[in-house]
Parts: sequence; C-alpha cells; structure tokens
Amino acid sequence: MFENKETTSIDQLGEFGLIDHLTQRFTISKPETVLGIGDDAAILEISGKRQVISTDMFIENIHFDMMYSPLVHIGYKCISSSISDICAMNARASQVMVSIAISSKYTLQAVDELYAGIQAACEKYDVELIGGDTSSSVIGMCINVTAIGYADAQKIVTRSGAKEGDLLCVSGDLGGAYMGLQILEREKQVFLDNKNMKPDLEGKDYIVGRQLRPEARKDIVDLFQELGVQPSSMIDVSDGLSSEVFHLCKHSNVGMKIYEDKLPIDQQTYDTAIEFELAPTTCAMNGGEDYELLFTLPQASYDKIKNSMDISIIGYCTAPHEGKELITKSGNMVALEAQGWENFVETNTNKSLGDDSIH
Amino acid sequence: MFENKETTSIDQLGEFGLIDHLTQRFTISKPETVLGIGDDAAILEISGKRQVISTDMFIENIHFDMMYSPLVHIGYKCISSSISDICAMNARASQVMVSIAISSKYTLQAVDELYAGIQAACEKYDVELIGGDTSSSVIGMCINVTAIGYADAQKIVTRSGAKEGDLLCVSGDLGGAYMGLQILEREKQVFLDNKNMKPDLEGKDYIVGRQLRPEARKDIVDLFQELGVQPSSMIDVSDGLSSEVFHLCKHSNVGMKIYEDKLPIDQQTYDTAIEFELAPTTCAMNGGEDYELLFTLPQASYDKIKNSMDISIIGYCTAPHEGKELITKSGNMVALEAQGWENFVETNTNKSLGDDSIH
Repeated sequence: MFENKETTSIDQLGEFGLIDHLTQRFTISKPETVLGIGDDAAILEISGKRQVISTDMFIENIHFDMMYSPLVHIGYKCISSSISDICAMNARASQVMVSIAISSKYTLQAVDELYAGIQAACEKYDVELIGGDTSSSVIGMCINVTAIGYADAQKIVTRSGAKEGDLLCVSGDLGGAYMGLQILEREKQVFLDNKNMKPDLEGKDYIVGRQLRPEARKDIVDLFQELGVQPSSMIDVSDGLSSEVFHLCKHSNVGMKIYEDKLPIDQQTYDTAIEFELAPTTCAMNGGEDYELLFTLPQASYDKIKNSMDISIIGYCTAPHEGKELITKSGNMVALEAQGWENFVETNTNKSLGDDSIH
Repeated sequence: MFENKETTSIDQLGEFGLIDHLTQRFTISKPETVLGIGDDAAILEISGKRQVISTDMFIENIHFDMMYSPLVHIGYKCISSSISDICAMNARASQVMVSIAISSKYTLQAVDELYAGIQAACEKYDVELIGGDTSSSVIGMCINVTAIGYADAQKIVTRSGAKEGDLLCVSGDLGGAYMGLQILEREKQVFLDNKNMKPDLEGKDYIVGRQLRPEARKDIVDLFQELGVQPSSMIDVSDGLSSEVFHLCKHSNVGMKIYEDKLPIDQQTYDTAIEFELAPTTCAMNGGEDYELLFTLPQASYDKIKNSMDISIIGYCTAPHEGKELITKSGNMVALEAQGWENFVETNTNKSLGDDSIH
C-alpha cells in the first residue's frame, strides 16, 4: 500500500508488443470460443451459428480532439470504426454496446450531440444499441464500443488464410484520413495563435471528412456476397497499410510485394501531401484511420473483381522468406517497416522508402 | 468548429436520468435481440440459445484510487464486478473482453500486476479473455470489461418478474464495501498528512477486502440450480440496496417492504460504522459495491431456501401504490429514497431513516 515501484516503461514494448506480452498468459478452451485474442474480432460459435465480437476504446486527446472534432462526428466515428472490425471478419454487424465516461464540464446538449452521432451511425449500419455504461471521469472523455456481428462459419475471414500467389487488394483510397488530420492540426494551431482566425478547410472537405467521419466498408462485405468472392484473409486499415500488411503476413505466414504505382491515393490526399512536403506514398503506406479493407484473394477470383472500381489490386503474396517489400515506381525493392499510427512522426523522417516515394 | 456552447449540466439529471434520456431514442427490432438497454445485461437469442452480455467502464479516481488499491486487486475487481452483472441474470459467465487505456507513467510491471489480477479472476470464475484493446491515455487509467454469459431461456432472470407477495432476499451481507472504503480513505488522509505513517488496517481485513477485491456471487447462481429455485427478479447490489430496490420495483411494477432487523450486516461493518458515527442501517441500505445478489422469490420457494445460511429474507413485495418502505426495529415505516453511490455523502446527513436507524 502507498508504494510505487518503477522499472520498465511500457513505451519500450510498443502497443503490439504490449498486447503480445499481456495476452500470452491467457489461453482459450471453452467449446464456444472459436478464436480469441489476435484478430479484428473474436469468434464464438453458439448452437452452430458464428458470432464475431470486438471491443475498442476511444480516448480524448489520443483518438480525438474536441478542438476540431464535433461531438456528433466523434459518436459516429466510434461506431463506424468499431463496425469496421466486424466488416474485416466478412461479417454483418448487428448490435453495439457503448460505455462513456464524461467529466462534468460537458453539458447535456453536448452528450446529446455525441449520441446523435452514435444514433446516426447505428441507423447507417443497421445496428442496434443494446447496452452500455455511463460514468463520471475526472478529466476528459472516454468511450468504449463493443460491436457484435454474425456470419456463416464458411464466410468468416480472419487474418490467417492468405496463401502464396494470392492477390493483395484494398478498398477505396489511402492516406486521406491522415492528411485530413494534418489540415485540422494546422488550423488548430492557427486558431490557438490567433483566436480571431477562422479555420480554412476550403477544398479539403474530402480528406477532413475521412478523418472526422470515416465509414466502415460494409458495402464491400455486401459486394463480396454479390460477386461470390471469398477473401482468404482480411484486416481493416486502422493503423496504416504497412502495419496491416505485417499483421496479415505474420498470421498467414506469407510475404507480400506491393506496387507503389498501384496504391490508391485520392487527388486531394496527393495534393495536400505535396503541400505539406510529405511523400504521398508514405501517407498511403503509414497514415492510419482510413478504415478501408485490406484483403487477399485467390488468383481465380480475379475475373470477379477486376471491374470493381472501388477495389484496387496492389500486390500479391509471396513465400514468407521473401519478406514484405514495396516495389517503387522506378522498380526498386524497398523493405517495409511495421509502423503504426503512433510512430508516424518518425516515419516522416524515415528514409527507408527512398527518393522514389517523393513524387 | 472551435466553438463551445454551455447550457444544461449533466449533474442535474443524475446517472439514471442521463441513461434514460440518452437511450430513449434507441429502439430494438433485430430478431436476435431479446432485451436491450435497462437490465444488468442485454439478452440475445442465437439459434435458440440465450446469451447475456454486459459492459462496464472503470475510471481511475472515480472507481478506484491507486493510492490504496493495488493494481492486482483493480484487475480482479473489474472482472468480478462485471461477472456480477451476468450472475444477476442467473446466467453463467463464459468470456470477457478487456480494454485498457494507460498513461506512460505506468511501468510494464504495473500493467503485469493489473493483468495478474484479471487472470486470477478469470480463473476463479472460469471465464476466458477473448479480446480487448490497449491504448494510451493522457492522464489516468481507464478499463472497460465486456462480459458474456449463457443460460437456458427459462432460467434467465431479469429485473421485471417480481410479483406482489414474493419474498425479497439478499445474499451475503451489506455495507461492508462502503465501510472498507471509509477505512481506506481515512488511512490515505493519515498518510498524506504524514508520509511516515503506516496504514492501520488492523481488524479491518474483512471490510477492506470487500472494497478492494469483491467477489461475484456465482456460487449463489449455482445454489439456485442445486435447490431448484427460480428467482422471479434479480439485480446485483452495485449502487446500494436502496437504489437496487427502486430498480426492481420500477421494472416489476411492485412496491417493497424491508425489515430493518433482517438486514444482514457483518459485525466488522457494524462496529466500524459505529466508530465512524454512521448508522449501520444507512450503510447497509445505501453503501454500494457489495456485489451481492438482491432477488425476489415466490413464497412457495421458502422451504427450499430457509436453511441457506448465505441468503437472508429481508422483506416482501407489495402492490405498487404501497411504495418502498423500511420497517424500522421500532416498527415505524420509513419511505426509502433512491440513492446511489454518488449521493452517499448527502445520505449520511439525511434524516429520513430517523433515529430508529441509529443503534
């Protein structure tokens, strides 16, 4: 009691190291637990039906900033990013549970705004709120969302089914949410320096929207169903493409090659990256929070997806010893580094992508 | 953007008022959702099997104080109090998901200690950890636990089945966790005033344990099974007996009479209350965090439970218009007030229990 020992800092391990360290002592053995820790969601089997379930925590000033995130968007984003985990299992989200802790600085109207966003997302994704918890907090806001979905056993996709030769694909475009964040951070600074300044978001609506109010790619799950396509592995892009590639490769025991010139980058993302003197490729590879789906497909599925405008084939799976490499526009091979969101500052000064990525 | 309106304070509504306000806009219609917001857990039906699921958030300096709560106990308590919600549905907990946000002031060893407590509780209650999320926090620790359990449809007990004439029963004893908290707060103050002072917990082990490391009454759920007893309604005592009585009465549309002399109060709780010049009855009625089960039983079940040492019959259900009343030791009727944990300070100066409760 009242003592305080200090030894190893958790920063030294990093988020994924910490998760591995903490969870290695836990094993699963219950008949209904099909898959425990380590994927986008856990899988339960209940009377032959598969349920997928995930839980995510969102912390003020870590995941969102009240200075530029309207509460209605924060509520929406917590739900859509949680549902993204269910989509990443090729399942359909059906229920959510939301816990919030709020300090007394928030008014009832503010909380109403947050829940209006939660409700809008529930309607958009056809999920229902079935429970939660409300609590005080001493400082700041904390939100936790548990999302529940369902899928037929043979339809569920984990991170671990990719095979050598499979195509690597991604939905939508990448790097936009990160560039939107850069714009918001810049305008916040302008405002803090001079409270009379209005934020200038002119021509940045797409990328700012990607950051503030991202969507889960439920439509892609629907498209797989429609096209009769079954991905061999899948993950959602929350920490950044590079980081997700590492997860898929680790779980599936494959390597991956990615073509720089195949990376889908929106013009607004591209132009803004240049404006900020950042390499658009770096933003696409390491910017997080796009909530697109990254998945692998057997080559036989190529004909079924080749005309889908919203899916880009960005590379392919190799033998594991071939590693994880970006093939640059000039044809050089550059080893990827596993970088999540939190390491992005270092990434920008990291030269591993070479000059090829500055274009 | 960058604006901040202020109007109604959330304090004015109170926790339950806020929950009612926020959730009224959400409805349930999915075929698998049997029960949504409003009970200890939501109920889902999946291929004919019933699943119960609840989520709880625990915030540093709101739910626990690092000054006197060892992390191993914090981890244990988060799990046991979440499993208590599953027990309150007469179900068996099977899986948990744990999200944590921690600031960088915590060492790896500290986080290990937290997870050792989580693991100990998982082993004790035979549940497995199947997922979670780890995050940074700017300040303080935040933990969210989602607990999942199962029960046959006809065994599940909600808050809404109590009938006029049913017996009102509670497991274990009441007020101990609250008196343990008073001891810990007193010793914290002594320590803050003089850092050389050692905490004096002599003879207070039971009540301090009730506060720091409470147990979920899974054994009572087992006992119901063994005795062939089916409660008509049930809730766990997290905010305090009085508050839980209000929940059962509201959901079941009944009134309740409680006999002061039937309230189970441990000798250590009683003696410590007197030492603190508090009425033991007030502590039993309004002290929270005992995590005992409060339930109603048809009178026909009396013979089955009368010899269970760990169950006290403390009153009975009446017609709703008869209200919620405490019958004091001297035979007076005193109307209960709905008071949760947060209002306890007012409760101590509230005279509604009368002098009868000071003994």
